[in-house]
Amino acid sequence: MNQPLEKSTHQQTKANNVQLVLRTIYDHGQISRAQVARLTRLTRVTVSEIVTELIESKLVAEVGRGPSTGGKTPILLSVIDDARHLICLDLEDEVFHGAVINLRGQIKYSCNLSRQDQGGAQAVEMVYELVDSLLAATRQPVLGIGVGVPGLVDSVNGVVRRAVHLDWNDLHLANLLDQRYHLPVHIANDSQAAALAEFTFGKHEQLNNILVVRVGRGIGAGMVLNGRLHYGDNFGAGEIGHMRVVEGGERCRCGNYGCLETVASSRALVRRAQFLLDELPGGRLASPLRRMAARPEDIDTDLLLRAYRAGDRTVRGLIEDVGYYLGMAIAHMVSILNVNQVVLTGSLSRFGDVLVEVIRYQLLRGGLPLLADKVQVSLSTLGKDIVMLGAASLLMGEVGLV
Amino acid sequence: MNQPLEKSTHQQTKANNVQLVLRTIYDHGQISRAQVARLTRLTRVTVSEIVTELIESKLVAEVGRGPSTGGKTPILLSVIDDARHLICLDLEDEVFHGAVINLRGQIKYSCNLSRQDQGGAQAVEMVYELVDSLLAATRQPVLGIGVGVPGLVDSVNGVVRRAVHLDWNDLHLANLLDQRYHLPVHIANDSQAAALAEFTFGKHEQLNNILVVRVGRGIGAGMVLNGRLHYGDNFGAGEIGHMRVVEGGERCRCGNYGCLETVASSRALVRRAQFLLDELPGGRLASPLRRMAARPEDIDTDLLLRAYRAGDRTVRGLIEDVGYYLGMAIAHMVSILNVNQVVLTGSLSRFGDVLVEVIRYQLLRGGLPLLADKVQVSLSTLGKDIVMLGAASLLMGEVGLV
Repeated sequence: MNQPLEKSTHQQTKANNVQLVLRTIYDHGQISRAQVARLTRLTRVTVSEIVTELIESKLVAEVGRGPSTGGKTPILLSVIDDARHLICLDLEDEVFHGAVINLRGQIKYSCNLSRQDQGGAQAVEMVYELVDSLLAATRQPVLGIGVGVPGLVDSVNGVVRRAVHLDWNDLHLANLLDQRYHLPVHIANDSQAAALAEFTFGKHEQLNNILVVRVGRGIGAGMVLNGRLHYGDNFGAGEIGHMRVVEGGERCRCGNYGCLETVASSRALVRRAQFLLDELPGGRLASPLRRMAARPEDIDTDLLLRAYRAGDRTVRGLIEDVGYYLGMAIAHMVSILNVNQVVLTGSLSRFGDVLVEVIRYQLLRGGLPLLADKVQVSLSTLGKDIVMLGAASLLMGEVGLV
Repeated sequence: MNQPLEKSTHQQTKANNVQLVLRTIYDHGQISRAQVARLTRLTRVTVSEIVTELIESKLVAEVGRGPSTGGKTPILLSVIDDARHLICLDLEDEVFHGAVINLRGQIKYSCNLSRQDQGGAQAVEMVYELVDSLLAATRQPVLGIGVGVPGLVDSVNGVVRRAVHLDWNDLHLANLLDQRYHLPVHIANDSQAAALAEFTFGKHEQLNNILVVRVGRGIGAGMVLNGRLHYGDNFGAGEIGHMRVVEGGERCRCGNYGCLETVASSRALVRRAQFLLDELPGGRLASPLRRMAARPEDIDTDLLLRAYRAGDRTVRGLIEDVGYYLGMAIAHMVSILNVNQVVLTGSLSRFGDVLVEVIRYQLLRGGLPLLADKVQVSLSTLGKDIVMLGAASLLMGEVGLV
């Protein structure tokens, strides 16, 4: 009984060592075998054996020679960025996005599929369609499929517990994709994926903790704590859109009142702008917005952004309101978690500085000054691909690359 | 160069195996060598060697024989509960508490030292006094000194960054104690220590995440996430006392307005009760409280608890108010972290059910119903020793016992 168990432990050690070596080469860009041995504390013989395997499997290549440190110049190793490709999906509310991503998080190919209100099994078919076209777009070996889904997602079992817009309940999405494509599949909540993307590919100083807040049609957060994505007991960590921030506020689609989403989502913003356009006399709203939108129905987030950039003070005021409530929620997160790095993403983050400014103000008002002082609020530099990059990071995490 | 590094890796493996064996015996109460080998996946020879060492160092003993599983009856091993003692301190606002605790978290000896408003170097002297008397009270080998401190505590470097009441700023407490006693020292924020205590010694089902909220003169939380105490970037995680919960609320000692402590701490509670006694005509406060307190100055938390237990409706209303704001903060924590186990401790937790009831109500109002439904709010069963037990858990964690 003991013998096979001991053996499996040794196999485990071997696999760990392979990951350790690969990760070390990946992190250093270019590195010699001797340096890898020094950093990993493995013997040179072990490192050489593993490197030979990695070269054979075309993950690593010899890319030149480094400076001599006395003897002959050492051969430098590097991970081949396109050695493996990743199929990554972001099942956003209105449009499904897909991309082929390489091991450095570079987008090699991307495509979009308008959802046109499809849900249930039809939405699953659309996912297949997207994956089919992505697989056809790469000739490299594919490491796996990663999917970011808006909703409650059990990342361990690969089940979408609840995604309201897609009308998915307890959908075993990972199984379905695995059966069809015979590839490793990882799925996660979209905001949680975004946090992982920012942690892996964002240009931050070395850090342990990061909060990522997505503000679009819905509001969600993701958090990496002590270097690990925090999922929560039911994979619902970061569901901040339904924190109550207004006593006696309006009814939310969740059934409660005064939720953050009722005052700080893009839907809330558009609704308020429509109300102003409709109700206020022209004089009160003499402004770019009035010129751009003939009727309330013309207003959407893009139009508001244009009006804001054209100097519309009414829109600026509405964004300050969004920042006020968002800042309140972020101040709570920071008070509870003491995380100094907060990153904004999602469609409303395009309003940029005005939002960041109000959030900073709220942080100083709503937390211990000694700690609030240290918090950095910034805008994500990863753009619209953030959720797909998070899906890529999930897959790369499985092979120990991040 | 490689040789010593490989060797140190092997020593590390050896140390890990010793911890693994010790932990397995500890967790199982009584267990045979063969069972340990099966559970740890180590060979019987390795396990036997380690067990011999543990018996020699008097940490483990053979305690009898288990049922036969075919051959001869196996010898059972057990960790000796009093093999090592731990010196644990809780430097609470008004009284310093100390205890000698064994490896099962049993209090073997305890003592209290009234602080009498001493701060700075004098408070350090009082800590020495306490440790001296605790060390004199045990004849067992001492594993180390653990200290829970109210304030901002850098647990990695053993430095009290800021403890306002004690007038300690950047005090290298761990160093001071180490120099004087030559024992391992671990210090932590008191609420963080309480979370660790609840995680280690609380009677909870196996769990990964737990939130512990302490409500006394101040309000603080501690959280174990994914099995690890979450400290935050500046060791300030859980500083929820200064979350803003009342817009336009009263000024807090931190300089901000409407902080949770201004409405839900025992100081806030007492102040409100005093106001009622002072300002309201007798008829409005015909009640146990009126009978018990001749003057506002008579009122403290203990008296309010007696009045509440005697059926005082005014006090009940005040506690409901405390629960309202506390519940708001806890709902925020739960929305952000999706943790299903919330435990209350501290002097106000003695109000028990009424507090829990209002907090539950707030959870349902202030979070996604699907997730809020799953949250359990309970009162700690660890009583006044919770911070010292957390300090014990910190020390035991260092030797791999928890």
